[in-house]
Amino acid sequence: MKIKDTHYTSIWLHPSNDRVVQIIDQRQLPHNFAIAELKNPEDVCIAIREMWVRGAPLIGATAAWGMYLATFEIPAHCTMQFYFEEVYAKILKSRPTAVNLKWALDEMLRVLSDVDTTEEAIAFSKMKAQSIALDDVRTNQLLGQFGLPLIEEIAQQKKSTVNILTHCNAGWLATVDWGTATSPIYQAFKKGMDIHVWVDETRPRNQGAALTAWELAMEGVPHTLIVDNAGGHLMQNGMVDIVIVGTDRTSATGDVCNKIGTYLKALAAYDNHIPFYVTAPSSSIDWNMRDAFNEIIIEQRSAEEVRYVKGKSGTLITDVLICPEQTKASNFSFDITPAKYITGIITERGICEASAQGLKELFPEKFR
Amino acid sequence: MKIKDTHYTSIWLHPSNDRVVQIIDQRQLPHNFAIAELKNPEDVCIAIREMWVRGAPLIGATAAWGMYLATFEIPAHCTMQFYFEEVYAKILKSRPTAVNLKWALDEMLRVLSDVDTTEEAIAFSKMKAQSIALDDVRTNQLLGQFGLPLIEEIAQQKKSTVNILTHCNAGWLATVDWGTATSPIYQAFKKGMDIHVWVDETRPRNQGAALTAWELAMEGVPHTLIVDNAGGHLMQNGMVDIVIVGTDRTSATGDVCNKIGTYLKALAAYDNHIPFYVTAPSSSIDWNMRDAFNEIIIEQRSAEEVRYVKGKSGTLITDVLICPEQTKASNFSFDITPAKYITGIITERGICEASAQGLKELFPEKFR
Repeated sequence: MKIKDTHYTSIWLHPSNDRVVQIIDQRQLPHNFAIAELKNPEDVCIAIREMWVRGAPLIGATAAWGMYLATFEIPAHCTMQFYFEEVYAKILKSRPTAVNLKWALDEMLRVLSDVDTTEEAIAFSKMKAQSIALDDVRTNQLLGQFGLPLIEEIAQQKKSTVNILTHCNAGWLATVDWGTATSPIYQAFKKGMDIHVWVDETRPRNQGAALTAWELAMEGVPHTLIVDNAGGHLMQNGMVDIVIVGTDRTSATGDVCNKIGTYLKALAAYDNHIPFYVTAPSSSIDWNMRDAFNEIIIEQRSAEEVRYVKGKSGTLITDVLICPEQTKASNFSFDITPAKYITGIITERGICEASAQGLKELFPEKFR
Repeated sequence: MKIKDTHYTSIWLHPSNDRVVQIIDQRQLPHNFAIAELKNPEDVCIAIREMWVRGAPLIGATAAWGMYLATFEIPAHCTMQFYFEEVYAKILKSRPTAVNLKWALDEMLRVLSDVDTTEEAIAFSKMKAQSIALDDVRTNQLLGQFGLPLIEEIAQQKKSTVNILTHCNAGWLATVDWGTATSPIYQAFKKGMDIHVWVDETRPRNQGAALTAWELAMEGVPHTLIVDNAGGHLMQNGMVDIVIVGTDRTSATGDVCNKIGTYLKALAAYDNHIPFYVTAPSSSIDWNMRDAFNEIIIEQRSAEEVRYVKGKSGTLITDVLICPEQTKASNFSFDITPAKYITGIITERGICEASAQGLKELFPEKFR
């Protein structure tokens, strides 16, 4: 998508140096647009763990490029296979919840298990990492294509602005391009439709305020920032026509693990008969998982993310303490929205009911 | 309640100057404890409008003291009655939603309509303002007395820490003393019970993080700050035993208008079979209101409260921008929780069902 009229993706191979992968340092958004360089698997782990990059699909793509970068550092003293498994394990640990991370690493390891020489490792892993990135773009484009008619239908009935609420950032910055939840939004906007996006701030890390709002502003999509508390009131008062969110991990039964607070919006949408859709590329669906509530361990992050808020004061980016010095905080990163509150799951093969049956109709091969 | 071992109330007459009312400047909490002076009705309007004081009961008490302070400035050129009505109208405009504001002003105007001399106006209004403040303390003490058994019952069944979630600040800083939602909490704590409070941050103004956490810290009550997004996850996972919140305005049918986001927590409590109680002194109940959704106009405040977050950076209190410069924001202050999601209303006469029938059983005289 666009940043000041130039088309960017969120990760790319350096145009003149094959040993460097470039990313947007998302920690500095929305205040500074800065490009960072990843040169080895350690850089990749730091970028994932400290959220220079975030969002399940982009984490997957970054991990894939991490395996590629590892091919330039194969040590003499151990087998390639052993080394790649070590790198795999190291990158896997950098963010526990995103299922795409493991998926992308598995794909890379599979390719790398067939190579005989360093040259092959470099070439094959480069091709595979590029293919994972391109597949993500194509997948997201399809999510948008399948989601678009939902917005068009509302527009036809309503004959005025379609108001879409989204939580967190399931935008192009969370993927390689297009985004997942934002893909139908961008496609509607590109078609010239009259749309408006309510952007949930998404505390504690404010990915809505910092990233989704920035994306939409760069692309020129009308949007309004709201606090996470506001969505229920808007829905009660007819100010939201549809909710579209992403997912970090979806069970094979349609329960959706996504950014903390998603569940609350789903409850409000359900209570007010507002469609609530989840965009879930199949790579984010955990086909072996039947019981998300017992199987997913919700990541807990630093309390300081809750106690402090990052923002811009004058020209400085700084963290401000919002509570008493002695107050402790708790920081669960995700929650799980039960399938019963989800109107439908938008996948790259179409839209289905949030249930094992619904997913099976689109992905029969996963249920054999 | 206590600040560093000294008992404070949130508003009081200056100990040596009867023409000055003192308050805690709550805008500076939790970082600085500062006392401010109110010397005339204009000071009172500013303090209410700019939220030096906030919380329905404290707004009422402050308004009452504002009418008292007006008695020192009766102009020669108009009748006392006309003047007091002017002051009444001016203070009434300072915050539109709180029903206590009008209630307290009505009480003061009634007393002031009977006076013949300035001396009488000063003396009678002083007595009445003091009585409104003392009544508030007594009311809140009763709310705690009636709410306490709810916590005790959970403690008896659970035989471990009782986890209470609260939203915004319905603490003693929102009243004259005790608080409303916090009154059962403080009374349980004073009895030596094993309790823990989940404190919702409460964006955009962060009254939970800044005020409730500070109150609890000063009193020594175990508590943990959470983002507004987290409550649903905690409730899904058995980490919340009871929710207790305050109200700015409750309809005669039991619908509760309270800080934006309350509705979302009520939905989550309902979905997880967790008791959700509202502490509502009868002064916050609008006995003439049957249809909160159509009759209450939800106050919209400045977008800058959403775009910026206030906090402490080093030794400075500053506002940081959390979104792109060009991003607009919307800021609805309250939402309405339908009575059906409320387990019970705790009043100064006991606990009742959130319905006209329930309220009528406790306050039959209001339904004649």
